[in-house]
Amino acid sequence: MQRQARTILGIDPGLANTGWGVIEQRGSRLSCVAYGCISTTKDMSLAQRLLKLHDQMALVVKRYGPTCLGIETVLFGLNAPSAFATGQARGAVLVACAEGGLDVGEFAPAAIKLAVVGEGNAEKAQVQYMVKQILGLDEVPHPDHAADALAAAICYVTHG
Amino acid sequence: MQRQARTILGIDPGLANTGWGVIEQRGSRLSCVAYGCISTTKDMSLAQRLLKLHDQMALVVKRYGPTCLGIETVLFGLNAPSAFATGQARGAVLVACAEGGLDVGEFAPAAIKLAVVGEGNAEKAQVQYMVKQILGLDEVPHPDHAADALAAAICYVTHG
Repeated sequence: MQRQARTILGIDPGLANTGWGVIEQRGSRLSCVAYGCISTTKDMSLAQRLLKLHDQMALVVKRYGPTCLGIETVLFGLNAPSAFATGQARGAVLVACAEGGLDVGEFAPAAIKLAVVGEGNAEKAQVQYMVKQILGLDEVPHPDHAADALAAAICYVTHG
Repeated sequence: MQRQARTILGIDPGLANTGWGVIEQRGSRLSCVAYGCISTTKDMSLAQRLLKLHDQMALVVKRYGPTCLGIETVLFGLNAPSAFATGQARGAVLVACAEGGLDVGEFAPAAIKLAVVGEGNAEKAQVQYMVKQILGLDEVPHPDHAADALAAAICYVTHG
């Protein structure tokens, strides 16, 4: 009997670029459903940028129907202005995920690297390569934001 | 002939407490329509806290029909974790305001103090006292978050 599939969303939030990725889990097998990046530009007002991030993420949730979300915790290496900008983007997309009733798992960067590569201090390129391998993709997902989002989704599976 | 009224929302965003205030402008006269504070607690998940902030703010926008919003810019005095938490709350409520089509004015703390008290380095208590005076209230609005939100709304009128 085949186990029921579970659909997991991953998000790498940012005001200019928010990466997202959707994976499917059947038993121990993971596959990639879709990934992408939502971009906003400085010629938009802040409110319009946040609304776009929210609305586009709500469309992803509606289209692929994930039941859970993996997302990286705050990077305390960020300075306050960067943390503030990233925080605003994260708030906008988390509202969309909460509206969709997703269970949210937050993971430290080291936990994501550990889940994907097997080492908590892995290089970015190693993470991206392993995302490609684990999901059986032909190439490393672009842009990086999408690969990072898929890594967070993979981490959810490991920890969930 | 009486000038048409304009309704202005002010917000003081925070993850635990988001203050809001609605004022009405008729010519040079300002009055207070309503104010309050949306609170969330640590026993709620982050996503649920952000969803509550968004949804309650959307109700305020729907109920009072403001056409514009005054909000304080980032306090760069914050450390990164505080900036991140405040940023997430700000992102959630700004989505609600963008959904309502509000024109957003962002003001530095000094600009708000200057608009309300006449001095950019005024004390918090002076700002709250002048909010009460300008809006003809019987007492200083509580909690402080609501008074700060009303101050941001008053600043929008001065600059808008």
